[in-house]
Amino acid sequence: MDQKEVLFDYILHLADNSMIIGQRNSEWCGHGPVLEQDIALTNIALDLIGEARSLYQYAAEIKGGNCTEDSLPFLRDIREFRNLLLVEQPNTDWAYTIVRQFFFDVFHYLVNKDILDNSNDLRLKEIAAKTIKESTYHLKWSSEWVIRLGDGTDISKLKMQTAVDDLWDFTGELFILSETEQKAMDLGFGADLKKAEQLWHEKVKEILNEACLTIPSTDFAQQGGKTGIHSEHFGYILAEMQFMQRAYPGLEW
Amino acid sequence: MDQKEVLFDYILHLADNSMIIGQRNSEWCGHGPVLEQDIALTNIALDLIGEARSLYQYAAEIKGGNCTEDSLPFLRDIREFRNLLLVEQPNTDWAYTIVRQFFFDVFHYLVNKDILDNSNDLRLKEIAAKTIKESTYHLKWSSEWVIRLGDGTDISKLKMQTAVDDLWDFTGELFILSETEQKAMDLGFGADLKKAEQLWHEKVKEILNEACLTIPSTDFAQQGGKTGIHSEHFGYILAEMQFMQRAYPGLEW
Repeated sequence: MDQKEVLFDYILHLADNSMIIGQRNSEWCGHGPVLEQDIALTNIALDLIGEARSLYQYAAEIKGGNCTEDSLPFLRDIREFRNLLLVEQPNTDWAYTIVRQFFFDVFHYLVNKDILDNSNDLRLKEIAAKTIKESTYHLKWSSEWVIRLGDGTDISKLKMQTAVDDLWDFTGELFILSETEQKAMDLGFGADLKKAEQLWHEKVKEILNEACLTIPSTDFAQQGGKTGIHSEHFGYILAEMQFMQRAYPGLEW
Repeated sequence: MDQKEVLFDYILHLADNSMIIGQRNSEWCGHGPVLEQDIALTNIALDLIGEARSLYQYAAEIKGGNCTEDSLPFLRDIREFRNLLLVEQPNTDWAYTIVRQFFFDVFHYLVNKDILDNSNDLRLKEIAAKTIKESTYHLKWSSEWVIRLGDGTDISKLKMQTAVDDLWDFTGELFILSETEQKAMDLGFGADLKKAEQLWHEKVKEILNEACLTIPSTDFAQQGGKTGIHSEHFGYILAEMQFMQRAYPGLEW
């Protein structure tokens, strides 16, 4: 991979994470447990899809040809997506959705913070500057929910601990560098995931402790998403997400 | 509509019913409550999709042009589908799946029996002759399950009665003739749904009585499927069902 190819693929890592967790959150639209949180989560989904859009636009400019902000999310197939397995996991219930969001928000915040502070790519810094304002709010929101439900009733605590235990296996992948992420770090535009890993664990520990939840002791890590080896759920996400563009090719608003 | 257009649209009524309930049943593949029934229901799905294929082939010959056995199920959009609302209802649980199948099987058997005995269209009779053997078995299978679970434990009875009550609203549509069905009857190739309605109620009553289940007293009928006004669920079915052909246009095995 030359530098341009690394940058293109690195942008997809970032964009696909936000796109897919945004799509997952959007499934809650109209189905939230209470109206205010239905709206909050749908707004978070819109933030994330908006961020993905900015990144896809940048990637499409780099790639050129027929590549567009629409073709990247809506016309690639499973193996070409670079998102983490964590973000494609099903909503299951409110506890899973909150825990998935919290684990991602800490990561998302730290990655964007490092890009904003240290990247040598101005366009990525610009996008990160906008994103960090949103992800700061997302992290505040999901942290508060983790604490409220973890340190809540017996049932809410049980549901949260179950979600933490199940989703923990997908958090190791966050910091197992793909070839692209390693090169992006070496080339000076990608986030430093080694530094982020330590900060992520500190923040997660702080919030889970406050929520009276236990951090799983396993260090087994499900991985594959970053290189296109996705879980069984992923095909169903794409089928739904891509229907409109595939049924009506070239459709624009 | 001239006679050819009526025939084409009538075939879609038949084919879309079998295709969509086949697709719904296929969602159980690998998730059945016990292995033997997982295989049974998947086989029923294959029978129904196979029947739909024969019908789509016939419809495509009538239509000509670019219309094929693949384009009809995989490239039409929601409003162009003619299936009953009943067959697109979600699997929900095993009870819903069984009750939906039973209500459809009685209808499916009677429609095919009447086409076999009385239709003036030889090709429809040929397809019905093959279908009736399969639908006879399907009806036997679903009837036995209705009886076993209705006259089973308190919980299985409750689940079955809930499914009967909820799905009952979708059974009225079976016998509310669309313009196409009325014309197909008048032209001598379509099934006589007035005769079928009486026989359907007799058979359903017989089996539900044996299953110790109560027939709902409401005669409210949800309708729209036959003329393309589908429920919220239907778009998700098509998104999943049509992904492969839309992602890889012209794909053949």
